[in-house]
Amino acid sequence: MAHDRDAAPAPAPEAVTVVGLGLMGQALAGAFLRAGHPTTVWNRTAAKAEPFAAQGARLAGSIGDAVAAAPLVVVCVSDYGAVRELLDPLGAALDGRVLVNLTSGTSAQARETAEWARHHGADYLDGAILAAPQAIGTADADILYSGPRSAFDPHEPALRALGAGTAHLGEDHGLSSLHDAAVLGLMWGVLNTFLHGAALLRTAGVDAAAFAPLATKGIGTVTGWLAGYAQQVDDGAYPADDSTIDTHLAAMEHLVHESEALGVSAEIPRFFTILAERAVADGHGGSGYAAMIEQFRTSAQEVRA
Amino acid sequence: MAHDRDAAPAPAPEAVTVVGLGLMGQALAGAFLRAGHPTTVWNRTAAKAEPFAAQGARLAGSIGDAVAAAPLVVVCVSDYGAVRELLDPLGAALDGRVLVNLTSGTSAQARETAEWARHHGADYLDGAILAAPQAIGTADADILYSGPRSAFDPHEPALRALGAGTAHLGEDHGLSSLHDAAVLGLMWGVLNTFLHGAALLRTAGVDAAAFAPLATKGIGTVTGWLAGYAQQVDDGAYPADDSTIDTHLAAMEHLVHESEALGVSAEIPRFFTILAERAVADGHGGSGYAAMIEQFRTSAQEVRA
Ligand SMILES: NC(=O)c1ccc[n+]([C@@H]2O[C@H](COP(=O)([O-])OP(=O)(O)OC[C@H]3O[C@@H](n4cnc5c(N)ncnc54)[C@H](OP(=O)(O)O)[C@@H]3O)[C@@H](O)[C@H]2O)c1
Ligand SMILES: NC(=O)c1ccc[n+]([C@@H]2O[C@H](COP(=O)([O-])OP(=O)(O)OC[C@H]3O[C@@H](n4cnc5c(N)ncnc54)[C@H](OP(=O)(O)O)[C@@H]3O)[C@@H](O)[C@H]2O)c1
Repeated sequence: MAHDRDAAPAPAPEAVTVVGLGLMGQALAGAFLRAGHPTTVWNRTAAKAEPFAAQGARLAGSIGDAVAAAPLVVVCVSDYGAVRELLDPLGAALDGRVLVNLTSGTSAQARETAEWARHHGADYLDGAILAAPQAIGTADADILYSGPRSAFDPHEPALRALGAGTAHLGEDHGLSSLHDAAVLGLMWGVLNTFLHGAALLRTAGVDAAAFAPLATKGIGTVTGWLAGYAQQVDDGAYPADDSTIDTHLAAMEHLVHESEALGVSAEIPRFFTILAERAVADGHGGSGYAAMIEQFRTSAQEVRA
Repeated sequence: MAHDRDAAPAPAPEAVTVVGLGLMGQALAGAFLRAGHPTTVWNRTAAKAEPFAAQGARLAGSIGDAVAAAPLVVVCVSDYGAVRELLDPLGAALDGRVLVNLTSGTSAQARETAEWARHHGADYLDGAILAAPQAIGTADADILYSGPRSAFDPHEPALRALGAGTAHLGEDHGLSSLHDAAVLGLMWGVLNTFLHGAALLRTAGVDAAAFAPLATKGIGTVTGWLAGYAQQVDDGAYPADDSTIDTHLAAMEHLVHESEALGVSAEIPRFFTILAERAVADGHGGSGYAAMIEQFRTSAQEVRA
């Protein structure tokens, strides 16, 4: 830009407060401190706050003190019930604060909490952390925010200290939880099937550590198909360019038999088989796998375990 | 190597036969032809073979002709039943051939087929293709083989034409199917949860195409955890360095509620919830997610959908 050489120096890191010092809250507070933000911390169980004093944090004596200490208040506790239990008694103390809630929940909870915050005069951003605590503050951490852009923009530099993958999804407070939900499903999809695969291979004396690189390659291969399948989903047409659901179903049945024969749990492949059989019954045996989207769009045909 | 400059020129590509020209067999035949192998093809439905004549393939008039045409016979049909139906009548014609079966099946089927091939005087390799047809012949195709090393080694250069990720796992003919099963589970784990996530986001007007890049990043993040979880599995100790199963379970419940509230199928997160609840009941609520391996090791506690 033409004005680069005249640009003002970066402003000093703003003061922040972190409420909740569980596994994730500790990582958040640590990242703010490392980035030079004057950081106040508070946790219900005070012992978890103490180690942060040595890192330069201010330990608030009460939740009210914590909220009063900084314009930006980041909350990360177990659930939305805990958020409300903590903040409800504060009343007017929230007025004028920007409250960023990184606690996991549903889009409905996010929207309700936004309404509640508005009532208390706080600007509210709902956020979702798509990363493990170890990744917080690094290039690998994606954190998604939704709510008023006018609340996000001034604090984006501070929020960016928590992860390079900081993104604002839109004004609807429910968007971050919804995206979180979608990505969380993938996480359990990968972890459960990895562990099931490890259990299968263990029967032949193969270590999980030996399986991990192969699993990583296999996942990489499948990930490479997602954009194409997404296009089919958006187009509503599922040509079997690669493999039909009939072929998948036959392979799922092998996985059921393999698991049963080896005495390993067959419940994951059996569950997949039921879903695929339903798609075949709906006339999608010759379609590509993207046609499975139709099994998920409504709750009409649900398997109840 | 010191002898590199005296090395013999690479031998001419050996003659090969491909039996089965479905989506995958066509890709295999195409890759052999592109790599310069004199290639004979045969398919039950002859029309699928005809396009290969223009690419230089020899079209065998019968399965017997096909098997007689080359020392290396690659078979890729729907299932092991079809393999046996095709090859059983040939009897002595198989004698001295190296039969490579890339049809998907279980480790038990692989071992039985090895026994049957031995009886007919054929050397037998069982293989598993961890790739879509489009990837065959490229750096992205992993194809795993098991069976006698003495059958694999002389034909490795030809087999490498099918994919750079060609690997021999061991002498036990069941190993390739077993590894295949483990990786296939991951494929459905990713695809089903991706499609479920796309169905969720669609309710907020977000396209699957917009979800794909986020899903890809999320999957990449989780894939990065596998080596650490594998180590915990092999060690039999599951410290919650990152997140407890209790925290996961709460998030799974959010995903169930989110799905229900939006009228999307909740069966995938409900299934995950049941598995995680069982781990909590077993005393693993405070453990890391790797403790879920214990839910998969035996069929004792299976959920029956
Ligand atoms: N860990 C991860 O990998 C991860 C990843 C993404 C998102 N998240 C989300 O981040 C949030 C926190 O997770 P975590 O791993 O940090 O959980 P955690 O280690 O179990 O910590 C829970 C925190 O919430 C506090 N808390 C719970 N109930 C409370 C109440 N009624 N009043 C006041 N404080 C209360 C706890 O305080 P005490 O110390 O006093 O018990 C503790 O600070 C969750 O919503 C989780 O889904 C976690
Ligand atoms: N497609 C993939 O992405 C993929 C990936 C990895 C592994 N695989 C495995 O590769 C194998 C083939 O899959 P595909 O996608 O090629 O399936 P496909 O397109 O359905 O083709 C099936 C092939 O098997 C032949 N066949 C079936 N029953 C037969 C019988 N009784 N006698 C003779 N031929 C018979 C068919 O002949 P006709 O043409 O006469 O019907 C056709 O050539 C399967 O085991 C599959 O699991 C596929």
